[in-house]
Amino acid sequence: MGSRHKPFTTLRSEVLVRNEWHSYCKDRYVGTDGGEADYYYVDMPGSAGCIPVLEDGRVAMVEVTRYLLSRKLLELPIGGMKRGEDPEAVALKETVEETGYRPRRMTRLGSFAPYKGASNEVCHFYLGEDLERVGQDLESTEEIAVKLVPLREVRRLLLSSELGDGQSLVGWLYLEKFLESGKNESLRRLLS
Amino acid sequence: MGSRHKPFTTLRSEVLVRNEWHSYCKDRYVGTDGGEADYYYVDMPGSAGCIPVLEDGRVAMVEVTRYLLSRKLLELPIGGMKRGEDPEAVALKETVEETGYRPRRMTRLGSFAPYKGASNEVCHFYLGEDLERVGQDLESTEEIAVKLVPLREVRRLLLSSELGDGQSLVGWLYLEKFLESGKNESLRRLLS
Repeated sequence: MGSRHKPFTTLRSEVLVRNEWHSYCKDRYVGTDGGEADYYYVDMPGSAGCIPVLEDGRVAMVEVTRYLLSRKLLELPIGGMKRGEDPEAVALKETVEETGYRPRRMTRLGSFAPYKGASNEVCHFYLGEDLERVGQDLESTEEIAVKLVPLREVRRLLLSSELGDGQSLVGWLYLEKFLESGKNESLRRLLS
Repeated sequence: MGSRHKPFTTLRSEVLVRNEWHSYCKDRYVGTDGGEADYYYVDMPGSAGCIPVLEDGRVAMVEVTRYLLSRKLLELPIGGMKRGEDPEAVALKETVEETGYRPRRMTRLGSFAPYKGASNEVCHFYLGEDLERVGQDLESTEEIAVKLVPLREVRRLLLSSELGDGQSLVGWLYLEKFLESGKNESLRRLLS
């Protein structure tokens, strides 16, 4: 499970559209049955998210108005990585910009593929602790409201939205796994 | 939270690439700050997944070799919808094709946006029960192995892969939420 494996041979790879955030590509490849086929996908260097927890146990979440879905989603701060960027640094930067809190301690929680069928993006999640209040720093096109949510309410709120945010939900699951392992008993007590 | 909201005005929308699975589009829009910007995204009619549970409490999972990630991922059956298709019908069809089991009872679990930043896809998840063994029916380009996993092992296995499958992990969370609500006590007992 999860083992690296290269049963496909890529014959050629073409960037069809390049923009500031990702590239859209078309590969010609040989599948496991020996036949050739095309694969169209978003090429992304990755993304990184954070669960920023204040000392009183509240989580700095964000309500983001999403253009593609024409609605607000309740999310954890996540940002796209540029090629060569470090996921922890990106998670930290996004957390500061979107929530206005800077974590002084970051712990890696896990990595997942959010959209394996049409994007090669891997999303890395972190727990952010020991937060310092520094103030939001948003791009003018972002409409983001910070919501401070008690730790034991986060799961219920993420799951009770009419439409959940997949990446935030997975990040939360990795935090539950981390706390179940007994690696942060004070946080675990806040959750139960 | 999750309310519909249209703070953006789309000026024009252009399909840049169209293929069998999705379209890749570029929109010109006016943001909340009054400025114009471009949005590049994957346009998908949606997707639908299923957690197919056998009478003995094992879940029919699939190990899929993913071209874009050059590795095998442990997944729940999920398939893309074509325009006008019904999510429950697609979840059922994918489950039969990929696992070889046909659920005779489907229960809706929840919906989420797997990749809100670069795709308008909404993924719908179902619990599949009362399974009938009919045999796998794969496309020649698919390399899929069925894994029958006890219900109480699914969460741990999904989370312990080096790289998790985001959509399957979220589907699983919605099943936990459903079982916590007390709506299927026999399944809940198998989990605890």
